[in-house]
Amino acid sequence: MADKDFTHFNASGEAHMVDVSAKASTLREAEASGRVRVNPATYELIKSGGLKKGDVLSIARIAGIMGAKRVPDLIPLCHPVLISGVEVSLVLGYNSVEISAAVTCGGQTGVEMEALTAVAAAALTVYDMCKAVQRDIVIEDIHLVRKSGGKSGDFYADFYAE
Amino acid sequence: MADKDFTHFNASGEAHMVDVSAKASTLREAEASGRVRVNPATYELIKSGGLKKGDVLSIARIAGIMGAKRVPDLIPLCHPVLISGVEVSLVLGYNSVEISAAVTCGGQTGVEMEALTAVAAAALTVYDMCKAVQRDIVIEDIHLVRKSGGKSGDFYADFYAE
Amino acid sequence: MADKDFTHFNASGEAHMVDVSAKASTLREAEASGRVRVNPATYELIKSGGLKKGDVLSIARIAGIMGAKRVPDLIPLCHPVLISGVEVSLVLGYNSVEISAAVTCGGQTGVEMEALTAVAAAALTVYDMCKAVQRDIVIEDIHLVRKSGGKSGDFYADFYAE
Amino acid sequence: MADKDFTHFNASGEAHMVDVSAKASTLREAEASGRVRVNPATYELIKSGGLKKGDVLSIARIAGIMGAKRVPDLIPLCHPVLISGVEVSLVLGYNSVEISAAVTCGGQTGVEMEALTAVAAAALTVYDMCKAVQRDIVIEDIHLVRKSGGKSGDFYADFYAE
Amino acid sequence: MADKDFTHFNASGEAHMVDVSAKASTLREAEASGRVRVNPATYELIKSGGLKKGDVLSIARIAGIMGAKRVPDLIPLCHPVLISGVEVSLVLGYNSVEISAAVTCGGQTGVEMEALTAVAAAALTVYDMCKAVQRDIVIEDIHLVRKSGGKSGDFYADFYAE
Amino acid sequence: MADKDFTHFNASGEAHMVDVSAKASTLREAEASGRVRVNPATYELIKSGGLKKGDVLSIARIAGIMGAKRVPDLIPLCHPVLISGVEVSLVLGYNSVEISAAVTCGGQTGVEMEALTAVAAAALTVYDMCKAVQRDIVIEDIHLVRKSGGKSGDFYADFYAE
Repeated sequence: MADKDFTHFNASGEAHMVDVSAKASTLREAEASGRVRVNPATYELIKSGGLKKGDVLSIARIAGIMGAKRVPDLIPLCHPVLISGVEVSLVLGYNSVEISAAVTCGGQTGVEMEALTAVAAAALTVYDMCKAVQRDIVIEDIHLVRKSGGKSGDFYADFYAE
Repeated sequence: MADKDFTHFNASGEAHMVDVSAKASTLREAEASGRVRVNPATYELIKSGGLKKGDVLSIARIAGIMGAKRVPDLIPLCHPVLISGVEVSLVLGYNSVEISAAVTCGGQTGVEMEALTAVAAAALTVYDMCKAVQRDIVIEDIHLVRKSGGKSGDFYADFYAE
Repeated sequence: MADKDFTHFNASGEAHMVDVSAKASTLREAEASGRVRVNPATYELIKSGGLKKGDVLSIARIAGIMGAKRVPDLIPLCHPVLISGVEVSLVLGYNSVEISAAVTCGGQTGVEMEALTAVAAAALTVYDMCKAVQRDIVIEDIHLVRKSGGKSGDFYADFYAE
Repeated sequence: MADKDFTHFNASGEAHMVDVSAKASTLREAEASGRVRVNPATYELIKSGGLKKGDVLSIARIAGIMGAKRVPDLIPLCHPVLISGVEVSLVLGYNSVEISAAVTCGGQTGVEMEALTAVAAAALTVYDMCKAVQRDIVIEDIHLVRKSGGKSGDFYADFYAE
Repeated sequence: MADKDFTHFNASGEAHMVDVSAKASTLREAEASGRVRVNPATYELIKSGGLKKGDVLSIARIAGIMGAKRVPDLIPLCHPVLISGVEVSLVLGYNSVEISAAVTCGGQTGVEMEALTAVAAAALTVYDMCKAVQRDIVIEDIHLVRKSGGKSGDFYADFYAE
Repeated sequence: MADKDFTHFNASGEAHMVDVSAKASTLREAEASGRVRVNPATYELIKSGGLKKGDVLSIARIAGIMGAKRVPDLIPLCHPVLISGVEVSLVLGYNSVEISAAVTCGGQTGVEMEALTAVAAAALTVYDMCKAVQRDIVIEDIHLVRKSGGKSGDFYADFYAE
């Protein structure tokens, strides 16, 4: 770990968008997940919404997919990427909405940030739609689940029992 | 709580942008916070970065401020708002970056989502700049700290020892 | 009609964003509608989708609401407006999806373009989701249904039997 | 037709951005067209505008070209694409503006939506610039004219005498 | 001058979006100008373009007007503003294109950045359209010409013989 | 020079996005530079800011990097490009901030506009942060320094003593 250093700063210590032009263009995949924790009353409203009326989870899914496309606008040093696929899943947990997003891309940079941003956008959208009924909602545990396709090798999160 | 219901769906159960045209235009404030949890090695790199080289926290602060302005693009049912001020603070905690964002606005809707999105954008940016050195970073505990100015009364989070 | 002229060009005949700073800030409303015409097979797929699987109309509704917010980016001479409400309705007609959008705003300019753009974005989204099964879909009859709140008086479309 | 189904929904019936990472990268072309129908007085103003003063059609052409680039922001499930060329044509018809847009791209997805959105953005811009003189303008007949380059074979619209 | 200091940094020296919520909402105006310097051959092409073929200056005018609306996306610490009018003028000088932009707004912040960004966007667009015929074009002398409406009093540039 | 002509207009003299689909995909590089001229008092504030408080130059660098990514939104006829790297440098000159930006990309079009826009966005951001202390700041001398990778051969600016 001693030789590791931030790549988003150049030799002068100034922020830059890392030059990836010499990297191979390969198939990149990344999956991230996160959670929106709500109280039982909000939980019941979300749950019933999926059946008889407007559907919080479907709208948040769209926001997640669209959020993956907004990464270059939101994260200053991220490269634009030609995303080739996005899956966003939202399922009900125990007084929670469990969110995961998987993104694929053929290119020179990974798509972790796209997957993580999709999760964040979906989580914020769940929050937005529930904030009229509960004010102490928490978005938590946004992390990378797996990634593959880059030079640094594949990665699978092992610190959670997932 | 029994009479509470989602406002983002109309009487037919369809999603809509709630009509706020009859609401009073008042000064709205909201503050949100969140945390990026990193390992000790990453923590030391961030800490030293503020002194001798590129500064992760300053860049994330800019991303947070700009993120607050992107809410209408990211959160499907949010109203555009004329944000009148944004403060984003990032401080080092115990193997963590502690983020908070305070947003003000004169208008007909609250700015919770602007504050929460600022926190999320700042957190994702910290993640992005650190992901080359650590892959199991976690973004956690994004929540509203306080809000004021709306018809529903002021709110102060009490469930965390903050 | 003889004295009518385009307002989007100044005295020199050059395009400009019309100065509305002297106009009164009033409640503006506009409603527009349009139609996506599909064949019977596509129609049945859309119809069944609402019940047992993914829902074309719900996603198009979100696209319509978000499209209303993108007007200043899309229509060169449009003013930014603080939209205060958007309703987008998509209902099944006779081998068609009938779309309408109603937008409200307190401000110095009307919201016709917001309502029309919401309809167009929703219609394009229906098209996008159906294009794998039918290639000769037609988007038609996008027009203003009513508007109110401006100096030029209210308007109700009378040339269609609506 | 029986085996056709929407591709924008996964096996669970949830919306997704279809994974195209295994598709061949080929030259894709698409052309779409549409029409803005105006009354004779508006028609004369547009016509004379091209000669002695500001030019409605040139501005709408720019809006169409720029609109093609905004597809990923507007249409929720569309992939970002590296558009390699856009031609937008606006010509005067019989009390109408006839719009067509041709888009090319080398990539894994077609560019129908880019061509259709270019037409829609140009049509909305014509509408915007003429709305001060006529309120019952209609945007109609937006459809795909041809497409080529995809796995599903080429397509030429045959239901209009074009 | 001794007591002057940057307002974009708070008491801790951190960047923020200045809180303007206590400022009066007044009519704000700003005008900026700039120049694109070209060689005689390019100059002649631009000049003839206005008469017999595509028009560089008209397209750059549209880019300038749209650029004014993109300030919150481009300039990190700028407030969103409800622009109420934009005039962009491009005239031929001596082997140059002289650009000016005037912006008005009713609100709590000035519109200098909107006017300056309109000039820059128009200038970059002139550059883009001419770069195939000349590679040593220069954009120069972008500055504020006048501003009014703010608490700090009106301003008129006096250092150029304009 | 006689045979040179604008490429952004088609044979009919109408603006288009030039079709580059037949061009080779090669590594493209471009560097541009520009200057913000300030008075001695502002100069001292910027200079001291880098040491003891908020840092104007770091924020402008981020704005420049992000600005490079916004070219397709700002410059009407520019192609979207997959930028593979951006370096933005801001150094203090003689009562000035000297800005340069270098952009790389593998693709079918050059990245001059990305480099020039990065310079312009960084310059406007410096202006924004200094405008509270000086009103007669000038942005000047934005030009291409070098480009390589295109069919038209490499270019190095020779008209400045750089």
